[in-house]
Amino acid sequence: MEKRTFNFNGTNKTVIVDPEMTLGDLLRKQLLMTGTKVSCNDGHCGACSVIVNGKLTLSCITKVSRVPDGAHITTIEGIGQPGNLDPIQTAFMTHGAAQCGFCTPGFVVSAKALLDKNPAPTREEVRSWFTQHHNACRCTGYKPIVDAVMDAAAVMRGEKPFEDLFFKMPDNGKIWGGKYPRPTAEQKVTGTLDYGQDLGLKMPPNTLQLALVQAKVSHANILSIDTSEAEKMPGVVKVVTHKDVQGKNRITGLITFPTNKGDGWDRPILCDTKVFQYGDAIAIVCANTIEQAKAAAEKVKVELEVLPAYMNAPDAMAPDAIEIHPGTPNVYYEQKIAKGADTAPIMQSAPYVAEGSFYLQRQPHLTIESDMGFAYYDENGNLTIHSKSIGLYLHLYMIAPGLGVDPSKLRLVQNPAGGTFGYKFCPTMEALLGVACMATGRPVYLEYDYQQYMQYTGKRSPMFLDIKMAADKDGKIIAMESGWIVDHGPYSEFGDLLTLRGAQFIGAGYNIPNIRGTGQTVATNHVWGAPFRAYGSPQSFLASESIVDDLAEKMGMDPLEFRYLNVYRPGSTTPTGQEPEVYSLPDMLDELRPLYKEALAKAKRESTPENKKGVGISIGVYGCGLDGVDGAEARIEMTQEGVTVFATWQDHGQGADMGVLGTAHKALEPLGLRPDQIKLALNDTGTAPNGGPSGGSRSQFVIGNAIKNGCEQLIEAMRKPDGTFRTFEQMTAEGLPLAYTGKWAAAANSNCDENGQGKPFAVYMYGAFMAEVNVNTKTGKTTVEGMTVMADVGMINNRLVVDGQIYGGVAQGIGLALSEDFEDIEKHSTMRGAGIPYARDIPDKFDIHYFENPRVDGPFGAAGVGELPLTSPHVAVVNAIKNATGVRIRHLPARPEKVLDGLKELETEPV
Amino acid sequence: MEKRTFNFNGTNKTVIVDPEMTLGDLLRKQLLMTGTKVSCNDGHCGACSVIVNGKLTLSCITKVSRVPDGAHITTIEGIGQPGNLDPIQTAFMTHGAAQCGFCTPGFVVSAKALLDKNPAPTREEVRSWFTQHHNACRCTGYKPIVDAVMDAAAVMRGEKPFEDLFFKMPDNGKIWGGKYPRPTAEQKVTGTLDYGQDLGLKMPPNTLQLALVQAKVSHANILSIDTSEAEKMPGVVKVVTHKDVQGKNRITGLITFPTNKGDGWDRPILCDTKVFQYGDAIAIVCANTIEQAKAAAEKVKVELEVLPAYMNAPDAMAPDAIEIHPGTPNVYYEQKIAKGADTAPIMQSAPYVAEGSFYLQRQPHLTIESDMGFAYYDENGNLTIHSKSIGLYLHLYMIAPGLGVDPSKLRLVQNPAGGTFGYKFCPTMEALLGVACMATGRPVYLEYDYQQYMQYTGKRSPMFLDIKMAADKDGKIIAMESGWIVDHGPYSEFGDLLTLRGAQFIGAGYNIPNIRGTGQTVATNHVWGAPFRAYGSPQSFLASESIVDDLAEKMGMDPLEFRYLNVYRPGSTTPTGQEPEVYSLPDMLDELRPLYKEALAKAKRESTPENKKGVGISIGVYGCGLDGVDGAEARIEMTQEGVTVFATWQDHGQGADMGVLGTAHKALEPLGLRPDQIKLALNDTGTAPNGGPSGGSRSQFVIGNAIKNGCEQLIEAMRKPDGTFRTFEQMTAEGLPLAYTGKWAAAANSNCDENGQGKPFAVYMYGAFMAEVNVNTKTGKTTVEGMTVMADVGMINNRLVVDGQIYGGVAQGIGLALSEDFEDIEKHSTMRGAGIPYARDIPDKFDIHYFENPRVDGPFGAAGVGELPLTSPHVAVVNAIKNATGVRIRHLPARPEKVLDGLKELETEPV
Repeated sequence: MEKRTFNFNGTNKTVIVDPEMTLGDLLRKQLLMTGTKVSCNDGHCGACSVIVNGKLTLSCITKVSRVPDGAHITTIEGIGQPGNLDPIQTAFMTHGAAQCGFCTPGFVVSAKALLDKNPAPTREEVRSWFTQHHNACRCTGYKPIVDAVMDAAAVMRGEKPFEDLFFKMPDNGKIWGGKYPRPTAEQKVTGTLDYGQDLGLKMPPNTLQLALVQAKVSHANILSIDTSEAEKMPGVVKVVTHKDVQGKNRITGLITFPTNKGDGWDRPILCDTKVFQYGDAIAIVCANTIEQAKAAAEKVKVELEVLPAYMNAPDAMAPDAIEIHPGTPNVYYEQKIAKGADTAPIMQSAPYVAEGSFYLQRQPHLTIESDMGFAYYDENGNLTIHSKSIGLYLHLYMIAPGLGVDPSKLRLVQNPAGGTFGYKFCPTMEALLGVACMATGRPVYLEYDYQQYMQYTGKRSPMFLDIKMAADKDGKIIAMESGWIVDHGPYSEFGDLLTLRGAQFIGAGYNIPNIRGTGQTVATNHVWGAPFRAYGSPQSFLASESIVDDLAEKMGMDPLEFRYLNVYRPGSTTPTGQEPEVYSLPDMLDELRPLYKEALAKAKRESTPENKKGVGISIGVYGCGLDGVDGAEARIEMTQEGVTVFATWQDHGQGADMGVLGTAHKALEPLGLRPDQIKLALNDTGTAPNGGPSGGSRSQFVIGNAIKNGCEQLIEAMRKPDGTFRTFEQMTAEGLPLAYTGKWAAAANSNCDENGQGKPFAVYMYGAFMAEVNVNTKTGKTTVEGMTVMADVGMINNRLVVDGQIYGGVAQGIGLALSEDFEDIEKHSTMRGAGIPYARDIPDKFDIHYFENPRVDGPFGAAGVGELPLTSPHVAVVNAIKNATGVRIRHLPARPEKVLDGLKELETEPV
Repeated sequence: MEKRTFNFNGTNKTVIVDPEMTLGDLLRKQLLMTGTKVSCNDGHCGACSVIVNGKLTLSCITKVSRVPDGAHITTIEGIGQPGNLDPIQTAFMTHGAAQCGFCTPGFVVSAKALLDKNPAPTREEVRSWFTQHHNACRCTGYKPIVDAVMDAAAVMRGEKPFEDLFFKMPDNGKIWGGKYPRPTAEQKVTGTLDYGQDLGLKMPPNTLQLALVQAKVSHANILSIDTSEAEKMPGVVKVVTHKDVQGKNRITGLITFPTNKGDGWDRPILCDTKVFQYGDAIAIVCANTIEQAKAAAEKVKVELEVLPAYMNAPDAMAPDAIEIHPGTPNVYYEQKIAKGADTAPIMQSAPYVAEGSFYLQRQPHLTIESDMGFAYYDENGNLTIHSKSIGLYLHLYMIAPGLGVDPSKLRLVQNPAGGTFGYKFCPTMEALLGVACMATGRPVYLEYDYQQYMQYTGKRSPMFLDIKMAADKDGKIIAMESGWIVDHGPYSEFGDLLTLRGAQFIGAGYNIPNIRGTGQTVATNHVWGAPFRAYGSPQSFLASESIVDDLAEKMGMDPLEFRYLNVYRPGSTTPTGQEPEVYSLPDMLDELRPLYKEALAKAKRESTPENKKGVGISIGVYGCGLDGVDGAEARIEMTQEGVTVFATWQDHGQGADMGVLGTAHKALEPLGLRPDQIKLALNDTGTAPNGGPSGGSRSQFVIGNAIKNGCEQLIEAMRKPDGTFRTFEQMTAEGLPLAYTGKWAAAANSNCDENGQGKPFAVYMYGAFMAEVNVNTKTGKTTVEGMTVMADVGMINNRLVVDGQIYGGVAQGIGLALSEDFEDIEKHSTMRGAGIPYARDIPDKFDIHYFENPRVDGPFGAAGVGELPLTSPHVAVVNAIKNATGVRIRHLPARPEKVLDGLKELETEPV
């Protein structure tokens, strides 16, 4: 140990510290200065940025021994505090630059270091600085952050008053449709929001730390598990195995389609007979400290019989492949689509047919925060599990039987989440936490390091897609044939639903009268398939939006004009045979046309043999909600100070808080409440009713409707005969109920049938994307230089939130197009290895055009937003690569070597 | 466990908490918000004050279950931060209202709650508020705090600009003699200074928590110690007993006089054969958590043979008393005084003789902070012990042989201390920490709760005093006889030195030509005697300053005039036969005279039969330094930024930081450095040379001289032939040393001989006190309504520090006079039970008059200050009680029942 003195944020502090500890751990674990976030522990993400003697420093990889004694260390806590914000923090709030907020302290500190050095940077210098200093953001697409830094810098240079940085409440007191900063924004920009890891450090003193014993192979039979040595290790309270699990020890897929050949009970909580994938949990060591738990985990002996590992769908479909789940075929679900007439004859006779095979990779969610949670028994004896779950009630029912707990005695709570983007639609560690808490009776905390998180949480399921599309001589699409194979990993959760998405979204956006196709869900031993933003549609659109371009090319038509001819118009139907609720695509293409032409001209003008420029477009459509009769509840309670909204509108980082507040404030408009009079009580099954999971862009639409309904009930109850409203005291005096449960259900919807036909969604989102790229023909590297987005997400609740969703979603699409993958379990298990885009990988020329068509069924006309931006922007990028170089990338990501291969092929191809 | 949400300082936070936990523990231990201090855990001190939903709340006694969900909790962290201070915090800095600073966050929060409620309080309302809300301060005497609140309130009301609250640097850049706020002030007013308890919470993760097994009897033989059951308890790493101690297992008194009948090796680290006092440590349980350590400590079985307990000196001196330390008589030291002629004949013939017997009680130090420390092996393998030690090198040598560690491998460090006032002149837990760290090899932390602190750290040794004084017909004192018996508890540390103080200070201030007397040091089984501010003099002056009044009364002289006639003037000698170095007492009495007359007149005017008013005076004298050739070293090192001062000038809370800074800044004046260019590296034997202990008002004088000398050496080395100074670069280039060890020793002093004669101190402090009291004759309660202090402490380094020392010392004197005691081991082991004064117990009319006589030997003319204010203010109070009521209190404290008894006696006495 060393006695060291550092000046933290202007204050000298003495610490007794192991010099081998990292500065990040010193700050967080020893001093509980949890404003500084640490996740990757690898210097990849910059969340841990602090300033040491004027130099921006990654605290997660800086050992205390390398920090000079007396060093001045500035952390986010020293930059500004709630109520006393720095201009940078203020600008981050006002520009919506903090979404999940996990990377925000690092960005704010990094921006401070930049502006200390260069008070007047250009936008490009800001982008370079963040890129050089590894500040990664997965939510915002970087543009709002750059906007914030530029704005703060102007204030700091004295070029405009500080007051200008603050949000101004409009005179009419209305916030709907405006840029009111989300309620958690101030905490996010000051580092005072406690995420799971922070809460974990602030747990009660008797909390046990958990370490997993995990499989290091992808497929095996378990012969024996010996915990005896581990149990004798210091500090170990218990080593939990499947024998300690009181219930069925299985997590159920719960919502399994009747034609699914599996029963949904395929995922063990703790492996008993088999290992199904790398990282599968075999035992949990519960100890007083994490070091003790990890040391003991090394001592658990597991004897395995290694089985062949099927790391992709074709291998698992091979005739000699054994069943991964004995008794269930590896291809366990099929979904057909059959709309209109048989397509075979049409294909034969059509003047224009294009076809192709595509592969969309196993996209990792790459949240900046890894995965963590904790559990304890609450004051009512409920097993209470905190995690990043975005489906609290869903998960509750998925894990209760496995744990052997009555659902009424199980309580799930969401911690503030440093991004999920869908991976937390699946339970990750909830059941493990439950088992460990039940086995020890003590509070327990579990955290996955970044590698564990990458290897043992779900990813976007890769799809192998075949597509064939036919057009008549007028350029009208007349038929489509499709086949899609879903590599869903070993666990069936939502695999059938995902497969259905292929039927719903391959070819979506166009009026295609005749469709035939089949999708298959395949169990493999790669990491399990989890929901990811735009679930199923990036795969679908990779096929259809690529082939539309190819078909246009065959016809000699401009791809925009070909699309314009075929997009939904009155009379059109979706692939499932449903009539769209609005028709915004033609308007979008009309608005895009001049921009597109200008971009094409610019590309042509600026292209050189070494740097080829191109422009690509795509359209995207996605439904809001779960298929069929989706519904939600929310409770609205009048209080002396205003109103409290109890809801399970889980937050990925997208802005659930603002969603709830904006909706409730709008719904309660007659009462004239200030936003701060509306209190949010979110995401705790112990207190809030079932709003359903937060996914599929359903929250604003479905939960929003429930909130609206609850608010309307309250207002009705408060209304006096003269039209004025009862006060809290009057309500109480008259014995009127103060709490109202708002309900809403999409009653007019219907599930898709065996042919994929039905009205699964009441409301859709529509969009068009234009990518401008530069392809370096020497290196093969593609750079997206511009992105233009046309978006119809209905009426907008909060502009900052919606902008942020679109910037961030499209940025993930760019990563999907160019760099992201989780194929190699080792190499791709870091943030950089998995190809996360940094600031300079996302264009600064990034424009959104809104088409606010009100939705009849949406609350105040709103639809959803989160999925739309990741439906097909990646296809705009690959279409642009094609436009620039002639190379059609069919297997994503379009990493440089693949582009180079394509360029080589073109050279050798006969012209 | 409960999931609770609170708004901490404007920010909503979710916590998982045991509802039975206190809010203070939640804040400090779970959330590491260590700005809120917790010490008494009993609601007695207010250090833990926070505001809950607008209400000032003692967090140490408020269970979380009583805090409503969503409650707004304001802690010191929410009031202002370093660099962003609130007016209250600023005013506390500028008024020197934070001394040790431990109570300060509580006071600031309390003041905030008051001003939120009452923006324009009167001084009396401020005092009442703090009293009602149990805000106790042991350093400041409250007046600077009230000043600060009044000043902050004026700013908050907009009556003066905020800037006015800040210290203004004088144009000449000089701070000597001014009111520069101490360097730690900002941290103290913001709660960001980490005291031992705070550092303990921020220790490395492998730190073990210690719990003591302590004796519950005061005297016993130990038959057996059985740790077997305790060792099996969960979380226990080791149970340490005397068998594990590698050295002699004794703490040595170290500086033992040759005539001492003991050898100084009487205090066990861990009891082996005997228990000597209640609370003696028998074993140390080392465990992962404090709860585990405490639970296991309950399981250690100790078999005892209980012996008669001698709880006071007379009992221990009884002929049938057994030897507490077998082989050493209970009366183990005697100190004679013999000055001038034999006094027996003078007493017989003198026209005026007064005599009396007195008892000064076992005054508890009543620091707001209890006692705590920790130990670890540093990077060089040195056993490093952090504590509140104010004698780092002293303690190092006192405990090294007992531990069995070579002193060169032992390192002692002082943590910021929440007050000591001398109790930490003795080692408390240093050796226990060392033993536990050596036995486990791991960092260890030990904390005494307030009761443990009260029962198992030293107190002021009570004295039984007999005195007889004679005057001639002209009112000149001609002889004094004295006897004093020191109840020093079981451990001999500095007991002989203390006994010598009786010879030096009984009768000090007056030219008494003939003195005879004997003091005896007695071992008892009550708590051990430790140094306490003004060491030995409050006892001495209780006798002599009471008897001077009685003698004046006998002579029919005014007590001021009688004193005036006899105080030191040129030609006078002290009781030890030394000539005073300055003569300030006559001037003081001249200045006091009109105030005294006015006070007497006012008392007479305002007295009623129920509320009798009176005025009393006393004079006080104390030496600066340790007896004889006291010396110190300090290292001055030139750095690129300025100068660093390495010194062991330990801090009780008195302002060591300011002492060092003020002295060094003055000494370095030729270099024109700003104060912030002088860096302090204090109180670590690993880096700073031996400055000696901080006690006996020696630091400013002795260490100050060493710092001055070091600075002079540096300046000399820097000086170029042309009179300008070399820069850092020039010094380095010329190969000149950058570090200079300043040294100083009081070479002209001499130790007192067997007759108490000698020149023990080079420099003395002189003072006079006037107390104005009200005695309620119904209740017996005495209230001090005014205090006037005349003080000559030489030239003043820092006025805030010196004011603070005087206010605080006198306040402790008022407590000594009226309420404080530690006699009943149970009843007196709480702050309130021991009689700590609150704001309304200390007068707001409290004036200091300085007489800045420069001391030839002092650095820049300074003497010391800390002891002077507690030499005799209590005697002024009891003299005032006598003046008001005729009751002479001889046995302190003058609690109401004692005054009532005196009043009753007077009634029944023949007139």
